[in-house]
Amino acid sequence: MARHDGRADDQIRPVKIQRGFTNKAAASCLYESGDTIVLCTASIESSVPPWLEGSGKGWVTAEYNMLPGSTSPRKKRDRAKVDGRTTEIQRLIGRSLRAIVDLKALGEQMITVDCDILQADGGTRTASITAAFIALVDAIKTIELPTSEYPLHDSVASISVGIVDGQPVADLDYPEDFAASVDMNVVMTGAGKFVEVQGTGEEATFSEDELSKLLSLAKSSIRQLTEIQQTTLGENWPF
Amino acid sequence: MARHDGRADDQIRPVKIQRGFTNKAAASCLYESGDTIVLCTASIESSVPPWLEGSGKGWVTAEYNMLPGSTSPRKKRDRAKVDGRTTEIQRLIGRSLRAIVDLKALGEQMITVDCDILQADGGTRTASITAAFIALVDAIKTIELPTSEYPLHDSVASISVGIVDGQPVADLDYPEDFAASVDMNVVMTGAGKFVEVQGTGEEATFSEDELSKLLSLAKSSIRQLTEIQQTTLGENWPF
Amino acid sequence: MARHDGRADDQIRPVKIQRGFTNKAAASCLYESGDTIVLCTASIESSVPPWLEGSGKGWVTAEYNMLPGSTSPRKKRDRAKVDGRTTEIQRLIGRSLRAIVDLKALGEQMITVDCDILQADGGTRTASITAAFIALVDAIKTIELPTSEYPLHDSVASISVGIVDGQPVADLDYPEDFAASVDMNVVMTGAGKFVEVQGTGEEATFSEDELSKLLSLAKSSIRQLTEIQQTTLGENWPF
Amino acid sequence: MARHDGRADDQIRPVKIQRGFTNKAAASCLYESGDTIVLCTASIESSVPPWLEGSGKGWVTAEYNMLPGSTSPRKKRDRAKVDGRTTEIQRLIGRSLRAIVDLKALGEQMITVDCDILQADGGTRTASITAAFIALVDAIKTIELPTSEYPLHDSVASISVGIVDGQPVADLDYPEDFAASVDMNVVMTGAGKFVEVQGTGEEATFSEDELSKLLSLAKSSIRQLTEIQQTTLGENWPF
Amino acid sequence: MARHDGRADDQIRPVKIQRGFTNKAAASCLYESGDTIVLCTASIESSVPPWLEGSGKGWVTAEYNMLPGSTSPRKKRDRAKVDGRTTEIQRLIGRSLRAIVDLKALGEQMITVDCDILQADGGTRTASITAAFIALVDAIKTIELPTSEYPLHDSVASISVGIVDGQPVADLDYPEDFAASVDMNVVMTGAGKFVEVQGTGEEATFSEDELSKLLSLAKSSIRQLTEIQQTTLGENWPF
Amino acid sequence: MARHDGRADDQIRPVKIQRGFTNKAAASCLYESGDTIVLCTASIESSVPPWLEGSGKGWVTAEYNMLPGSTSPRKKRDRAKVDGRTTEIQRLIGRSLRAIVDLKALGEQMITVDCDILQADGGTRTASITAAFIALVDAIKTIELPTSEYPLHDSVASISVGIVDGQPVADLDYPEDFAASVDMNVVMTGAGKFVEVQGTGEEATFSEDELSKLLSLAKSSIRQLTEIQQTTLGENWPF
Repeated sequence: MARHDGRADDQIRPVKIQRGFTNKAAASCLYESGDTIVLCTASIESSVPPWLEGSGKGWVTAEYNMLPGSTSPRKKRDRAKVDGRTTEIQRLIGRSLRAIVDLKALGEQMITVDCDILQADGGTRTASITAAFIALVDAIKTIELPTSEYPLHDSVASISVGIVDGQPVADLDYPEDFAASVDMNVVMTGAGKFVEVQGTGEEATFSEDELSKLLSLAKSSIRQLTEIQQTTLGENWPF
Repeated sequence: MARHDGRADDQIRPVKIQRGFTNKAAASCLYESGDTIVLCTASIESSVPPWLEGSGKGWVTAEYNMLPGSTSPRKKRDRAKVDGRTTEIQRLIGRSLRAIVDLKALGEQMITVDCDILQADGGTRTASITAAFIALVDAIKTIELPTSEYPLHDSVASISVGIVDGQPVADLDYPEDFAASVDMNVVMTGAGKFVEVQGTGEEATFSEDELSKLLSLAKSSIRQLTEIQQTTLGENWPF
Repeated sequence: MARHDGRADDQIRPVKIQRGFTNKAAASCLYESGDTIVLCTASIESSVPPWLEGSGKGWVTAEYNMLPGSTSPRKKRDRAKVDGRTTEIQRLIGRSLRAIVDLKALGEQMITVDCDILQADGGTRTASITAAFIALVDAIKTIELPTSEYPLHDSVASISVGIVDGQPVADLDYPEDFAASVDMNVVMTGAGKFVEVQGTGEEATFSEDELSKLLSLAKSSIRQLTEIQQTTLGENWPF
Repeated sequence: MARHDGRADDQIRPVKIQRGFTNKAAASCLYESGDTIVLCTASIESSVPPWLEGSGKGWVTAEYNMLPGSTSPRKKRDRAKVDGRTTEIQRLIGRSLRAIVDLKALGEQMITVDCDILQADGGTRTASITAAFIALVDAIKTIELPTSEYPLHDSVASISVGIVDGQPVADLDYPEDFAASVDMNVVMTGAGKFVEVQGTGEEATFSEDELSKLLSLAKSSIRQLTEIQQTTLGENWPF
Repeated sequence: MARHDGRADDQIRPVKIQRGFTNKAAASCLYESGDTIVLCTASIESSVPPWLEGSGKGWVTAEYNMLPGSTSPRKKRDRAKVDGRTTEIQRLIGRSLRAIVDLKALGEQMITVDCDILQADGGTRTASITAAFIALVDAIKTIELPTSEYPLHDSVASISVGIVDGQPVADLDYPEDFAASVDMNVVMTGAGKFVEVQGTGEEATFSEDELSKLLSLAKSSIRQLTEIQQTTLGENWPF
Repeated sequence: MARHDGRADDQIRPVKIQRGFTNKAAASCLYESGDTIVLCTASIESSVPPWLEGSGKGWVTAEYNMLPGSTSPRKKRDRAKVDGRTTEIQRLIGRSLRAIVDLKALGEQMITVDCDILQADGGTRTASITAAFIALVDAIKTIELPTSEYPLHDSVASISVGIVDGQPVADLDYPEDFAASVDMNVVMTGAGKFVEVQGTGEEATFSEDELSKLLSLAKSSIRQLTEIQQTTLGENWPF
């Protein structure tokens, strides 16, 4: 059965990236994957969280937020408290970035990557990770490092895969995400190592065979995203 | 004394407007005034606040928010509570829009205009008002009205003026805003009526003569912004 | 058309002031303007906010609160969070006081003026400012100053003016405030300088001519309030 | 050993009561016991809490609050959350009033008595109860009752007693309260029945003999307060 | 009239105590009184609250919490804020423990006793106090004391008494607590001194004679609980 | 290299289960896995969340909480807000249970499973899931079902696996969890289907081969847990 937008099962949505969309933060990038639009900004602070003070190590963290107008119906702002989904996502983004960062080589400074969703059409957390890596690389260009060691040892990107109408497919948009019986977010490095595998049966279960097909779709999608990151960063590509 | 960016005292910053920047909300516009960038989205809800239920009247409200990466150093998110400045600004935007809306002619539906500041370089609240009017006009195009009466009876725009180095100037950017001894936000309609006049001595005071010069600068600036709104909206301009 | 309580358009309500109403805080005053009753207390702390530590400068701030029984129907207490209106008002009072204070001459100490509304009949924020000045003067009498320089360089008072039934009037009580199409709060010094001008069309607009009439009513009202402050403070009047 | 202000061990502080101090709430009273000053207002609402809807029964509740300037050093406002002490006190006041109210005879309406402490010199919770009864009686005069049955079957008043320097004394002021090893708040009706007995060893303990002396001091003090309530209410005294 | 479970008026429920139920905290005890089950854990911290820093004195505090499944219907968790009843109870437990502790002899360390109610059948606060004493004794065994002085000068235990169907009875279970017209919690030491007496008429009042009967029931019940504590602690019993 | 407690790489900790540990909730079970102790209670409510009202479908949800004394140092209670980790875990438990529930067959009633951690030694979330299933089965015994259809179509259990010292191992205790470079929680049904796979490199990455070994360890561990569940439930085992 064909996908509702005509894509092949393993075909990701078109990606458009604009580095330096804003210029107050150390680095920024506007990342579009189909109709999903993320604005990532990376800000530098010279202080680190309390538990790292005096350790010589830096910190990389992330915040995630959907703008109210990013979705229809309008999403109420998280002003009284942060909802559980938001917390889960921003912890995921932070962990994914730290998996490829050498915090020691960063020195005692903190980079906060803000992922604000300007428009949401599925895959906002995975787009945030892929985009955040680009802002992170550009932000690191602007800071002074304690030694000659470069603080990133690999690149990182992410994609969602899932089972829709019984069929494993890559890069689900919102209608597919809504219809999926299994939803899996995979984060991998450019070198092909896993950082996160989060597969969830939405009031459903999945077999070993399905799991293996989903992982294979994720791998090939992330390989494409890594190439896009490399092309976008051009001579800033650090590896 | 010349302004730090070479503008004449009564010269506003260049304005760039992109309607339809996102497409999930009923209307959106990306508004740039110099380095200040606002994303306005207007969302429609079919229900009104409790005090208007059954009244046949609609409601127009606004929310304002600065993205963390819009400024340097990074601004912490308003997640535990909304700070006082944010509350003041979003109430101002809402009142300014309602001054030119006939809530009866809107019927029982609510329009929420979200003003998210992607980059902040002074004048974010006044840019929000000028941009919100554009999103409001476009959003009204998408809804069904209860009668043939058009719900807007005038346009609205806003500018900041102030006294910097003893000199009254129009459209302060961030460095001027920081240095200003008097800061005044003026909201006016296309027909030249005042909606709001908010003049504040920042640990300073101002004379009647200075007040009158500031009001005159505001008037001519807003006249220009009204023309820009009209040009941008093209045949959607409602008057 | 006559006002509902028979006052002339430029006539303010009778003012009654009782200094030293309570004696635990450094200074206090019970201020009545018609049926509006404010209890102002000024408390001294020997520490200043973090951003002033070590600067040799002091700080003056204000808090505003309506008691639940000050109005009918009863107003719920601000216990979970402070509502937007309260925040706006207490920031206004604080700014108004600081406009006439030399923070350097105060030395590193903080004065907090609490304005608690015991009864509300319109003009609670402007009454708070006029009363707070009196408590501030009395509180300064009780503290040790770092130098011989007196920390106030002018007095400050405030009044509301507005357009009711098409007529500009001074010192609106609650029924007038409710009916007003334009509401303006003006803060001025004893020397006739503006500190704040906050004019708001309540879902209405106003012309230049109306603005100028309102400003003129405010000026003459504040002149009277300044005289009342001087008479009340007697030999404590600092100028 | 003599008390620091020369009172006899069983002597209460002078009481001054001003009914109708404010006029927006249904009833109000300014109650002074020595230097402790409480403003009680009683407000009527025509709705009851959810668990009483349709029951034909009314509700009486209380809120307690210390104004920031009521004490030195200044007390921070309870704006983010209500502190434990405040909650305990307002629950005590509410229970004490309800002990003498026939909620059925009130009909489905709610009376909220707000006890705002304008000045604190010990005994603020017990003064609040004694004052609240007066406001409650006056508020009931203003409402329509469902039947001819009067909703109060007794009066209520309260006093603090304690052991200071080994000596049982009545009506502790702040310095005595601070020094007391045992602190007991007693609430009794005009007919001499107990409503609450709350005796607390402040990091201390007390014997049966001491307990019995404290109860006896409380009884005679409350008898005096009941007479003062009766005199103050004059022909409004309901029994 | 017989009690619903056949107990005599002065008969307490069977008590079962299991010391060391968990082993991560410094001490723990599972305490059952009839169907009421409390898990007390005592944790040690080497820092004290700010107001005791450098004083050489320690601190003992308590927290109380009912697990959602401890009662039917399920009790919502206190996650947004702590309800008033919880605050009252944990302050009571803390005060009761501190009444028998010499904070100086503890040295600058803090013991927090957590009382988590696994099952609630009335008397949860009094059971918590009796159990907390046991955990406190065991926790003190594990810490280093600054001097040879033992920090406890007495034991402490607690019971609820009340008037049910006009009859004073000891150790109310939930159905009795619900039906009681008067409810009194008494905290006493092993040496027979009072720490707290909290008697409350639940929309009811009580006479002097009833008060005296309740106190007498409490005294004899607490004497039994003290013996149970002593037996349970065996050679750890400190007196 | 041997594990610190001598277990084989694929050996799970001893499990002890006590059904009916408390009796106020519909069902309860005390579940011990090594030193980790969870108290699960399942409570029934006759109402469902708003989005299910009138749908004929029920709901199953979970809450997770660590008692302060469950760990050393003491864990502060989640009283002001729920921390991100807690939210993530309780969402995971809820989803895991719903994967094997037919909400239609439950009828419009809600089951809340509370998982309170009495002692924490690693694997608290996976122990919660395995225990929650037992409480769920017992709770369903106590309710009336709308039809003859049994609402569970499979059992569910969970285990953590991870890479410690480069070695894939099953059922990590706290020291292993702390040292693990990769941590994976797997939820599977008795029929061998996956419900959740959550693998996280803790500032580390893992290869395809490692992923496959971890999944295989998880599978065999969960098979054992399923047998234990069946034995424990005895004739209540529903399949």
